[in-house]
Amino acid sequence: MKKHNFSAGPSILPQSVLLKASEAVMDLDNSGLSLIEISHRSKAFVDIMENARSLALELLGLEGKGYKALFLQGGASTQFLMVALNLLEKRAGYINSGTWADKAIKEAKIYDDIYELGSSKEANYNYIPKGYDIPEDYDYFHCTSNNTIFGTQMKEFPNSPIPMVCDMSSDIFSRTLDFSKFDLIYAGAQKNMGPAGTTLVIVKEDILGKVSRKIPSMMDYKKHIGSGSMFNTPPVFPVYTSMLTLEWLKGLGGIAAIEKENEKKARLMYSEIDLNPLFKGFAVKEDRSNMNATFTLENENLKDTFETMLKEAGVEGLNGHRSVGGYRASMYNALPLDSVKVVVEIMSELESKA
Amino acid sequence: MKKHNFSAGPSILPQSVLLKASEAVMDLDNSGLSLIEISHRSKAFVDIMENARSLALELLGLEGKGYKALFLQGGASTQFLMVALNLLEKRAGYINSGTWADKAIKEAKIYDDIYELGSSKEANYNYIPKGYDIPEDYDYFHCTSNNTIFGTQMKEFPNSPIPMVCDMSSDIFSRTLDFSKFDLIYAGAQKNMGPAGTTLVIVKEDILGKVSRKIPSMMDYKKHIGSGSMFNTPPVFPVYTSMLTLEWLKGLGGIAAIEKENEKKARLMYSEIDLNPLFKGFAVKEDRSNMNATFTLENENLKDTFETMLKEAGVEGLNGHRSVGGYRASMYNALPLDSVKVVVEIMSELESKA
Ligand SMILES: Cc1ncc(COP(=O)(O)O)c(C=O)c1O
Ligand SMILES: Cc1ncc(COP(=O)(O)O)c(C=O)c1O
Ligand SMILES: [Mg+2]
Ligand SMILES: [Mg+2]
Ligand SMILES: [Mg+2]
Ligand SMILES: [Mg+2]
Repeated sequence: MKKHNFSAGPSILPQSVLLKASEAVMDLDNSGLSLIEISHRSKAFVDIMENARSLALELLGLEGKGYKALFLQGGASTQFLMVALNLLEKRAGYINSGTWADKAIKEAKIYDDIYELGSSKEANYNYIPKGYDIPEDYDYFHCTSNNTIFGTQMKEFPNSPIPMVCDMSSDIFSRTLDFSKFDLIYAGAQKNMGPAGTTLVIVKEDILGKVSRKIPSMMDYKKHIGSGSMFNTPPVFPVYTSMLTLEWLKGLGGIAAIEKENEKKARLMYSEIDLNPLFKGFAVKEDRSNMNATFTLENENLKDTFETMLKEAGVEGLNGHRSVGGYRASMYNALPLDSVKVVVEIMSELESKA
Repeated sequence: MKKHNFSAGPSILPQSVLLKASEAVMDLDNSGLSLIEISHRSKAFVDIMENARSLALELLGLEGKGYKALFLQGGASTQFLMVALNLLEKRAGYINSGTWADKAIKEAKIYDDIYELGSSKEANYNYIPKGYDIPEDYDYFHCTSNNTIFGTQMKEFPNSPIPMVCDMSSDIFSRTLDFSKFDLIYAGAQKNMGPAGTTLVIVKEDILGKVSRKIPSMMDYKKHIGSGSMFNTPPVFPVYTSMLTLEWLKGLGGIAAIEKENEKKARLMYSEIDLNPLFKGFAVKEDRSNMNATFTLENENLKDTFETMLKEAGVEGLNGHRSVGGYRASMYNALPLDSVKVVVEIMSELESKA
């Protein structure tokens, strides 16, 4: 049975990417060797890494603007720590817009003073904090563009007088933005880019080298930049598969093209949530995420019927995170519009049954 | 053409493992979903992680002895840092037996006093330092069981009065040892276990929780243990493939069985190096590694002929590391004896030509 994969991450990847990645595990480009058994210093792999790095910059429109792309290990969670180690000298300002933002704050606090410039914690993060000022004498400002768990998304970004750092784990490459507003962007691969196991970091070089602490090598962006994102053995399979996804995206027409698809999917999903009296959206309307739509089923008695219908249609991963409950439809770049149609039809069928 | 893959890491994996890993990228166990697009919190993946963790302990004979196995990100290089963060309160003793040991020392020095209890740096690391005492009042003792670059291997380990930490990146699962002598073992997957992108850490729980510093979450062994090696999204493909390799090894009869094969390969290789007047071993005989045999070709004029012969026979990855020069035959668990025979025949043919 065909599956409709709404998993929040790790999540759906294009079928053509899976096929090429699977083939490369047996034989990389007819070399007679597997992708995963060749040296990372071989020309074949160095080319893969360089291609992945430059595709990332190209798709974001950041080529030739002083940025470097790195494919690191450790997940986005390690970035919570690396950002502070590399940039925090005295104090920084964070927006607490969700569970991940909250964790980013906690990790940075180990190193120095962190101020929450805005928080929506009191409302279980159902909106994006707004109307804050960013102090000019802070080291950096940190925000989360898309809150995966709660289904909220920043639609506008401040003009920050200090370096702006953004966790874009769950919406990178999904919508056009002026990415040059940001000085450091990071994103775990496992939503819009590839398998879990690598994290893309885009960093403007001139913000680095300004803290006084001694940074451990593996935590030091400068060390990773200096060695072409190969300071140590990189995670070859996640990097290769991410490269394939970025090639796929470029082939489609880049971020502008996928953004249109993502808008169609989100519009369809949210209009059903709104019009169907059985369902209710969790996030406030103006902050709704185009990546993760969170909603609840108002009538608990229909839960089993709804979930059986989903199951029979091959819908996977629609369960909400325990901190919100209900359902979450993650509609990342690789999710086809048809999968959203399947869920929306079930929602509407449920209404007619009720 | 069939390849003979002597790469030092990432390196050869069993063909049956590559095949299963490749299939899982398209469809995991007939689930209709790829291994890399399912949630790491799904039962399917939690089972994979648990299976990998318990196979590691089982193969090392460490089940029920107070150890936990973790599959982390960041490579062995991140362990240089994590070991110090988790265990170093005042001072520790290290053996400087190679480039990696030297880097482990440098990273730990950021945090506190590190003493080199033995070093072979002055001899370009062609032997294993011996005859040192381990002070009882140090926090821990750190050694490297196999020096990948130089081709030396510790044949005996001290009875340490303090926790013994060992970097076994390049010989874990290759020979029988009393692994319960060690309190913390770490190994990047990309030699004897799987693709690059995960690092196995085996840690005796009772050595943890004794330092006064605040440890960042992603660097904290206790946090990773507490969450079943899923504190954040784990590198699913490297973990799955490592699990397959551990299953393969168990199927062969475990470490004792593979050790016999590894001895045969090493004996064949070293006897050719010794008997053939054209070649000379780099490491002192008593410390020779069964995993990485380092050697030089004495007559520079034969270099091109030798390398052409290797190439024509499909031999890959035999070039030595730049700090040693010459050649390095990495003979990890998955390398067949036949591949060693091919190289040895070429060496002997070269002799008859010369
Ligand atoms: C926005 C955001 N940030 C950070 C993380 C943590 O990522 P990782 O598991 O790679 O550490 C996630 C994971 O879902 C996320 O959605
Ligand atoms: C003995 C040893 N330790 C550490 C490392 C570093 O491993 P990684 O590249 O995973 O950080 C290596 C890499 O070859 C190694 O051989
Ligand atoms: Mg969130
Ligand atoms: Mg409604
Ligand atoms: Mg070495
Ligand atoms: Mg000789």
